[in-house]
Parts: sequence; C-alpha cells; structure tokens
Amino acid sequence: MITALGGGIIRDILIDSLPPATFSDWRYLAVAASGSLVAFTFGRHLHRLTSPILVLDAAGLSLFAVSGALKALNFDVGLAPAVILGAITAVGGGTMRDVLIGRIPVVLRSELYAIPALAGALVVVIAEQLGASDLPAAVGAAALCFGIRMLGVRFDLHAPAPPGNDRDA
Amino acid sequence: MITALGGGIIRDILIDSLPPATFSDWRYLAVAASGSLVAFTFGRHLHRLTSPILVLDAAGLSLFAVSGALKALNFDVGLAPAVILGAITAVGGGTMRDVLIGRIPVVLRSELYAIPALAGALVVVIAEQLGASDLPAAVGAAALCFGIRMLGVRFDLHAPAPPGNDRDA
Amino acid sequence: MITALGGGIIRDILIDSLPPATFSDWRYLAVAASGSLVAFTFGRHLHRLTSPILVLDAAGLSLFAVSGALKALNFDVGLAPAVILGAITAVGGGTMRDVLIGRIPVVLRSELYAIPALAGALVVVIAEQLGASDLPAAVGAAALCFGIRMLGVRFDLHAPAPPGNDRDA
Repeated sequence: MITALGGGIIRDILIDSLPPATFSDWRYLAVAASGSLVAFTFGRHLHRLTSPILVLDAAGLSLFAVSGALKALNFDVGLAPAVILGAITAVGGGTMRDVLIGRIPVVLRSELYAIPALAGALVVVIAEQLGASDLPAAVGAAALCFGIRMLGVRFDLHAPAPPGNDRDA
Repeated sequence: MITALGGGIIRDILIDSLPPATFSDWRYLAVAASGSLVAFTFGRHLHRLTSPILVLDAAGLSLFAVSGALKALNFDVGLAPAVILGAITAVGGGTMRDVLIGRIPVVLRSELYAIPALAGALVVVIAEQLGASDLPAAVGAAALCFGIRMLGVRFDLHAPAPPGNDRDA
Repeated sequence: MITALGGGIIRDILIDSLPPATFSDWRYLAVAASGSLVAFTFGRHLHRLTSPILVLDAAGLSLFAVSGALKALNFDVGLAPAVILGAITAVGGGTMRDVLIGRIPVVLRSELYAIPALAGALVVVIAEQLGASDLPAAVGAAALCFGIRMLGVRFDLHAPAPPGNDRDA
C-alpha cells in the first residue's frame, strides 16, 4: 500500500492538497488494499511473473508521472516544480518502500527509472502550456515514459554515470 | 524525541493540522526531552529493565493508536483513514527512529505490532460512530490494543505470513 | 538536490508554508541543479577537495540553521520550536540523503553537527527576542555555528556520549 499510495501522498503534502486524496476518497485505499491482499496471498507464485510485473510497474510509473504532473499544475507551483512533482509521484512510493525495508531505492540505482518519469511529466507539462487537449497529451506523455522504461529494461540501458566512475550497476 | 513525537507529527501533516501539536504546545517537547535525557543518562542500566520497557512501549502504542484515531476523526477524513491514521500515530515514531539508525522497522517484522494498533483504532472509531461516550470507548479500545500486544509478547505470537513463505522471525 | 533542499522542505511542511519555497521560487531549483551538475561532472576530482568541502558544508550548515530559525519565527510557532526547526533546516537535507543511500545520518554520529546548528539557531532566536537588528544577529549566530563546527572538525571533538558507553566514533 505504501508503494501504491506513497508517491501521491508526498505530492499532496508538497502542493498543500491536504488531507491527501488517499484519505479523502476511500477508493484509493480499497484498490491498494485489494492489490496488497492478492500479492500477500499469491506471493509465492509471483516470481514466475517477473516479466508481467515489470510491464505493470512501467505502466504505473507512466500513469503516476503524468497524473502527478497534471495535478501539480492545478495548484500554485511553476512548470519545473510540476515536472519534478510528477516524477516524485511516480517514484516516491517505491522509494519509501525500499527505504523501509533497508534497500537502496531503485531510483538511485543505475537503471533508467527517474529519466522516463521526468520525460513523461515534462512532455505533459509542455503540452498543457501549448494548449493541447488533456487526453491526447496525457496518453502521449505516458506512452513516452512507458516506452523509455521498457527500452531500458529490454536492452539493459543505464542512466549516465559521472565521468570516470566505475559503474556499480 | 523522534520516537515519541514522530507519529503524531506525521498524522498532523496528513490531516493538515499544521504546525503540528508538537510545535504549538511546548509541553510535548518538554516531556519528550525529559524522557530522552533520562534515557541518555541512565542508558547503561536500562538493559535490566527490558520487561518494564516492553510494558511501557505497549502502553504508548495503545495511547497513540486511540488518541491518533480520535484526533483524525475531528478532521476531514473518513472512517477507514481515521483507523489508519491512528495506527500511523502509534507506529510512526518508532518507524522513523528505526529507519534513521538503519534497522528494519519493528512494524515490518513478524511481531504483533501493527495489528493491535489497528484493532485499538478500529474499536474507538466504531464506538464513536455508535455514539459511545468518549472516555469508556477510549479506555476499552486502548485496553484491547494493550492486551493483544502483551499477549503477542508473552506467547511470542506472530502476524500472519504469506502462505508458503518460511518465516524470517 | 535533496541535500540542498530537503531541510527547507521539511521546515516548510511543518510550519505550513506550502508549497515549499523550493517549488514557488525557481531560483532554488536552479542553484541546486547547477551545483549537482558540477559535482556530477567533476566528481572524480572532488576527493582532492575534502578540506574546502568541509568548509562549504559548515557554511551551509550555519546559513540554513539561522535562516531556518528566522523563517520559523515568522510563522505560528514558539521559541523552542523555532530553534529546533532551524536545526532541522540545517541537518534535514543531509539526513534525507544519508537515509536514501543507506548510511547512518551524520547528525546521529558522534561528530559535532547538531550542536552547532542548535547553537546558531538558539542565538538568533534569542537575539530577535531581545530586539537585535536582523543582520548583525544573523551574522553573529552563523559565525558561532560555523566556528563550533570547524573547531569540531579541526580538533576531532565529539558530542557527549551516554555515560558508561564505549564510543563507536
């Protein structure tokens, strides 16, 4: 539940939309609890599903990056903050989970994870500024985020490392 | 001080009761600082007191679960969020402490810790909805939380694990 | 960027100054991003600069402790909370960074780190109460924080440990 809801909660705190949507609309808690229950019950079979889970995770990343940036735009923040808040919505929940279980968050490892989220949020923010209609802008931006993330997974691409550093992959 | 005050601060952020009670009423800081000073000074003798400390911790868990849920009910959140916010108040401070010192938070280990907090918060929220008077409802709910926690400690009971998993205790 | 901006974001959440200054004034993001980019690019040469980095870090600690306490004073908090919020502003960013990369935060190690921040914040809060003019009070308090921190680094001074404990340095 922290993975699913944590990013949106951080965003809602930062844009002063309190209490967070999670706590004022019961459907968020219901969906997250149902998903957790399924994973809890069938967890031992989930390792057979690595590939579908990576796809679902990339879809969630895209959805959260775009919806997070759009919600931030509706509050009193600038364009760059809206992009960053979109990326925080996308990676925040997984980061909280990883910190709690004592792992280095995936967003700080060398995989392509923050970059697709920033790209999706950036595109939807620019499209909104240019007056594009909401739905096509959101779908296009989410598709871009999803595409970059899946290319990264498929071809094992990495975020750029500081020059001269050995990669710790 | 983080252990004592962290859970309430997280709750107050989430229900938009800012600045947190901790910072607007000096008595919170005074009590927490006094307790910290005692523990700092007499820390080397505290290992003789494991059993009283477990009882005090269970009492704090119960008090925070019930008072956290009651405060949340007074703000603009639903019933399920109030229960969850009660549990967050109860386990949040210890979780922040454990994350800062690099331990897996006790609430994520297999002990009975979140379950008594959720049970106490649930009972007090239901009792309030049924129109019970505040004091008996709070005392009963806290007693339930305290009882479950102490039974868990005494008989080494564990939260249910996912089916098929070996327990990592 | 988390190191530079994290402490101020935590302070702004706690005093209900949302969205945080970081997100409403683009210059914060610009400065932090520029600094990050420089460090990212020239990171492999930075180990030659340990000493200047310690000085810059102490300067940042002083600046954040004093400015954080002054901002908190302008909101609805008492004097002790303003001192604590100054210290949180100073040490919060580095603490978030350390938690994310799986290190024990420097503020919890035995170095003199929280103490100079608390001292600087305390002095500026007292000076404001006594009606001192802003600039001399802020400069004096920052100098005190900077001085204590640099003495600690230079002479390897430590925060007091609980009596009877072996130091884990």
